[in-house]
Amino acid sequence: MRPRSRDRRLENAQEAAGNGLLDRRVFMKGGLGALATGAFMAFASTEAGAAGPPEIPAGMKIAGAPLSPYGSPATYEREVTRTLIRSQPGTTGAGASRTPLEALEGIITPSGLHFERHHNGVPAIDPAQHQLLIHGMVARPLVFTVASLLRYPMVSRIHFLECSGNSGAMYQPTPPALTCGQTHGLVSCSEWTGVPLRLLLAEAGVDPRADWILAEGADAAAMSRSVPMRKAMDDAMLALYQNGERLRPENGYPVRLFLPGYEGNMSVKWLRRIKVTDTPTMTKDETSRYTDLQGDGKSLMFTYPMEVKSLITRPAPGLRLTGPGLYELSGIAWSGHGKIRKVEVSADGGQSWAEAALSPPVLAHALTRFRIAWKWNGAPTVLKSRATDDAGHVQPTRDRLIAEHGANVIFHYNAIQAWGIESSGEVKNVYA
Amino acid sequence: MRPRSRDRRLENAQEAAGNGLLDRRVFMKGGLGALATGAFMAFASTEAGAAGPPEIPAGMKIAGAPLSPYGSPATYEREVTRTLIRSQPGTTGAGASRTPLEALEGIITPSGLHFERHHNGVPAIDPAQHQLLIHGMVARPLVFTVASLLRYPMVSRIHFLECSGNSGAMYQPTPPALTCGQTHGLVSCSEWTGVPLRLLLAEAGVDPRADWILAEGADAAAMSRSVPMRKAMDDAMLALYQNGERLRPENGYPVRLFLPGYEGNMSVKWLRRIKVTDTPTMTKDETSRYTDLQGDGKSLMFTYPMEVKSLITRPAPGLRLTGPGLYELSGIAWSGHGKIRKVEVSADGGQSWAEAALSPPVLAHALTRFRIAWKWNGAPTVLKSRATDDAGHVQPTRDRLIAEHGANVIFHYNAIQAWGIESSGEVKNVYA
Repeated sequence: MRPRSRDRRLENAQEAAGNGLLDRRVFMKGGLGALATGAFMAFASTEAGAAGPPEIPAGMKIAGAPLSPYGSPATYEREVTRTLIRSQPGTTGAGASRTPLEALEGIITPSGLHFERHHNGVPAIDPAQHQLLIHGMVARPLVFTVASLLRYPMVSRIHFLECSGNSGAMYQPTPPALTCGQTHGLVSCSEWTGVPLRLLLAEAGVDPRADWILAEGADAAAMSRSVPMRKAMDDAMLALYQNGERLRPENGYPVRLFLPGYEGNMSVKWLRRIKVTDTPTMTKDETSRYTDLQGDGKSLMFTYPMEVKSLITRPAPGLRLTGPGLYELSGIAWSGHGKIRKVEVSADGGQSWAEAALSPPVLAHALTRFRIAWKWNGAPTVLKSRATDDAGHVQPTRDRLIAEHGANVIFHYNAIQAWGIESSGEVKNVYA
Repeated sequence: MRPRSRDRRLENAQEAAGNGLLDRRVFMKGGLGALATGAFMAFASTEAGAAGPPEIPAGMKIAGAPLSPYGSPATYEREVTRTLIRSQPGTTGAGASRTPLEALEGIITPSGLHFERHHNGVPAIDPAQHQLLIHGMVARPLVFTVASLLRYPMVSRIHFLECSGNSGAMYQPTPPALTCGQTHGLVSCSEWTGVPLRLLLAEAGVDPRADWILAEGADAAAMSRSVPMRKAMDDAMLALYQNGERLRPENGYPVRLFLPGYEGNMSVKWLRRIKVTDTPTMTKDETSRYTDLQGDGKSLMFTYPMEVKSLITRPAPGLRLTGPGLYELSGIAWSGHGKIRKVEVSADGGQSWAEAALSPPVLAHALTRFRIAWKWNGAPTVLKSRATDDAGHVQPTRDRLIAEHGANVIFHYNAIQAWGIESSGEVKNVYA
């Protein structure tokens, strides 16, 4: 080991904010990593005794497992699953399962781990029997089979989907003692492919006086939402594929509505009906549910775009630090208003902030992965991230969010998240 | 129905090349689709008898299936699998399985359908036991555990991976009577996240006289390839995550080398050793295998980047057209040299060509989805696609590829693919 050389390199690395946050370019080509022999060595590797080939493990002496028609995760990763937190009493299919964000990297969520939120379970739909009706204020009502939808022109886009109830437990007076994914995992991101809704509406011929559509699902809850015509004619799609293959059952197979950036429940799954209307339909799902009760007793309705938000996912509750030294902080940011413009990170509880590196591609209405180097001195501290979108929205503090909206709701929580780092390396959800 | 109005719209739509290829903007906002009531109706929908809500299907009257910890595809999609075409006699794990390209959309391949090519099966590796050695011409040999690798700085990128033997059957004198995926499905595309190899090499301290590395896998074939130091220090990564979650076993769990754009076998799976060397090691896998025997009896060695290539995947063998009318042709293009600059499509066997629309994001060393509208008159014809990358490489004709390289090889086939359309709607692989 050559600790002197290593330490000098690290000590010379430019600190971008207090308590050890380093410039975001430090690991890029030409940065510290490309130059410093042994820069990380104190934590991440051991010197090999000999320079020869390593011992042959037993697994190299026997033929491996065969090819398979459809693959599964490694058995050693079997604990990386969605977490079912709560459900309606007496039911099995009403509730939510959450994506284990702290176990994932990049921006794509594998479809098997995409969050779920169902109101009466996942219907088993035979695509040969399923029909979609477009009716109401149209020149002619039309019925589409799945086979006919598959023949229409399509678009593909990478988009997040977030339940409006995501992070709802953060409105509670004490921070939830859960993993990052258990608290915030009602957000996922996939490549969605489907038919622009405006093409199908054009087929039916929309009455110029129509300002809304009603979208209804074929589940036993008949999940139904009103959508402004402007969104329907803009970037709304009828999604048929998710991450390359046909939709998963729990994501609306055989066809779902997808509204980029809007609260998840509006992207109605198992879509069976679109009615063109002149007013919102005021369904149960937009009156008794999915309205946002404010501190003054009034409710906000039709709160569509999910606000700008970010999370450090590594480290985060569910993971732990293994001692002082150099780390890379990694996280996700997103906004229903467009692209992420920047993410700032603080390692001193918000006293100072440094800009993180955004991993390309940075796409509208998609998760964006951010990363920044941090040299932890081993003392307790608080990590935070703060995202800004390209419409200029900035994540609020929790205090400000609650001052503005109260704590009667569980919806649209997007405040800056604080992770407390203890000297043991434990990571806790804290209000700080 | 108002066929007169529909027909006029379509007849007025600008033809961009012979035999019904329409301008690539025709389905975009402001194009034909936004204007023409009933533009597609002849093929894709039926008028509804009544304007009221549709009948309630039985599935809406019973509670649906429960939430699940890890999801799976719909049972109705159970035939969408990888196809195992051939194997070494007497073995189960030596061979290849192919991605069903004609059943997929977008650019992400779900990990369960990523192609496989193994030389002696998939080893079962306990990540707590696995070690990676970096040795040879370094200041100090190092051993990395998987836990230590997971602490290093990471990058995420969407990249294709293509086996150099992909499409090898196309060198045969008669076109293979297989689906698109069975012929060309040794290519897939994922979001890969991992540690830049240059960071780990810097840790070990590379001797300035070293020009190569040897990468060795922990499978029973000890798959081994030499990689130029320039690539190792450029964009090579040690991939730990695929499409958000940890690598799948058949993709190298717990860690694989990933070399963007290079032939797939060089991205050594189950990586256990990197030896820094001054010359290529001349392993069995780069002398007896993965060399390209040319028509003149000489062999090309170290043919790294996969050449520019494209395929129409819809329609393609495995699918069929359902009668004359308007279609969207959809396909994928990629190049190991960089980004796709354009894809041209012909509907008259190559006499005339129109430029397809590229679906963003268009990324370096990634699949790019292209689409174009086509009005089929019902007569037999031949569809082709021709990709150009941003380095200026253009897909050759099959005749030219074979004239240059001969037909002794099965590797690096990238010629323009012709699909014969029969009046029945059947789609066949043809040499045309």
